[in-house]
Amino acid sequence: MSTDNPTDVPDVSGVSIGILGGTGDQGKGLARRFGLAGHTVLIGSRSAGRAQEAAAALGGTVRGAENAAVAAEADVVIVAIPWDGHRSTLESLRAELAGKIVIDCVNPLGFDKQGAYALPVEEGSAAQQAAAVLPDSRVVAAFHHVSAVLLLDPEVAEIDLDVLVLGDDREATDIVRGLAGRIPGVRGVYGGRLRNAHQVEALTANLISINRRYKAHAGLRLTDI
Amino acid sequence: MSTDNPTDVPDVSGVSIGILGGTGDQGKGLARRFGLAGHTVLIGSRSAGRAQEAAAALGGTVRGAENAAVAAEADVVIVAIPWDGHRSTLESLRAELAGKIVIDCVNPLGFDKQGAYALPVEEGSAAQQAAAVLPDSRVVAAFHHVSAVLLLDPEVAEIDLDVLVLGDDREATDIVRGLAGRIPGVRGVYGGRLRNAHQVEALTANLISINRRYKAHAGLRLTDI
Repeated sequence: MSTDNPTDVPDVSGVSIGILGGTGDQGKGLARRFGLAGHTVLIGSRSAGRAQEAAAALGGTVRGAENAAVAAEADVVIVAIPWDGHRSTLESLRAELAGKIVIDCVNPLGFDKQGAYALPVEEGSAAQQAAAVLPDSRVVAAFHHVSAVLLLDPEVAEIDLDVLVLGDDREATDIVRGLAGRIPGVRGVYGGRLRNAHQVEALTANLISINRRYKAHAGLRLTDI
Repeated sequence: MSTDNPTDVPDVSGVSIGILGGTGDQGKGLARRFGLAGHTVLIGSRSAGRAQEAAAALGGTVRGAENAAVAAEADVVIVAIPWDGHRSTLESLRAELAGKIVIDCVNPLGFDKQGAYALPVEEGSAAQQAAAVLPDSRVVAAFHHVSAVLLLDPEVAEIDLDVLVLGDDREATDIVRGLAGRIPGVRGVYGGRLRNAHQVEALTANLISINRRYKAHAGLRLTDI
């Protein structure tokens, strides 16, 4: 398989997906879309009860459980937790996440009167922090820019967006590109190594400014590929 | 004028454009496109002779001169110099650039065997360094992602790209959005305040990785605006 073409991705239809922090808007939105695409989806939360509520609201095949149970069961795990508890939550799940593909989509941002801005991260980025905390996992960065509003909107059939997929493990980034492509309209595009994740996470602050100025849910598309 | 629509920009057809570091590929490429659009274009270099050679090679109305003369004469000045001499060159032109719109398109990048990566910048970004060094200028960040190869290619009539325009001075960013739109195919889109310039500069490293993977000259488009 050549993957030098963004439409050329592995078959990931049988992959089960866990979403840590799946009760937040981003997590719920991704759960909804992957459920619609036919995946087994497990929503994780610190509270099993809240996870089950969020899963029930989405319906279909989406189930809810505690973060640790989700991390242990799912084939691929998406980290959609708030930046605040990022390090400690991942540290507590190191054993369950060992050997798995872990997709970090967390954007470390601050907000003030002038809008959003990137927070400094000791390791360089949330994704690099995940890789440092989870040395036995295959950490990939992706899904930073997808709008939770669009993911959750039942009127939106397709999302006009390229998901940038970053990582140092070629097979893992190919699988995640495949997962991105399971959302109608979305293309998963390789976006560089993990050391270049910071700017992709931080660019979410710019998208927030753009959305405010143009009253939009802006996404990125890459031209010429 | 409402500028909450990216196609709604001021008339900038009479604006003269100076390009510091205009003998580099990025500078020459921008000079070529602005010359084709009918602007008076002044290429600047440390050496007047090299600036004149570069201008002669482009032909048309493009002229060459020393950086200081270009900074003094042009209405709007684009900074396309290497990151290495960024601070010292701007410091030496503070008087000439006072009161002017200064467009910084410099990407502070390092390169090694794994490709490109973002360099740390004390002020946060090249654009913020320019603003710190030039307190009397109106600093705007733009044109980071436009491919010099495409700008210089006579076979390329249109460039499929949104130029992100960042700054804290609304009138200045509107004028620069107008200038971006003078390149056929290009749209100038407001991209946030100057404090969010770092990630736009650094994203050039990701585009370099993307270009290498997909054998492309990738550009960004924003969807839904």
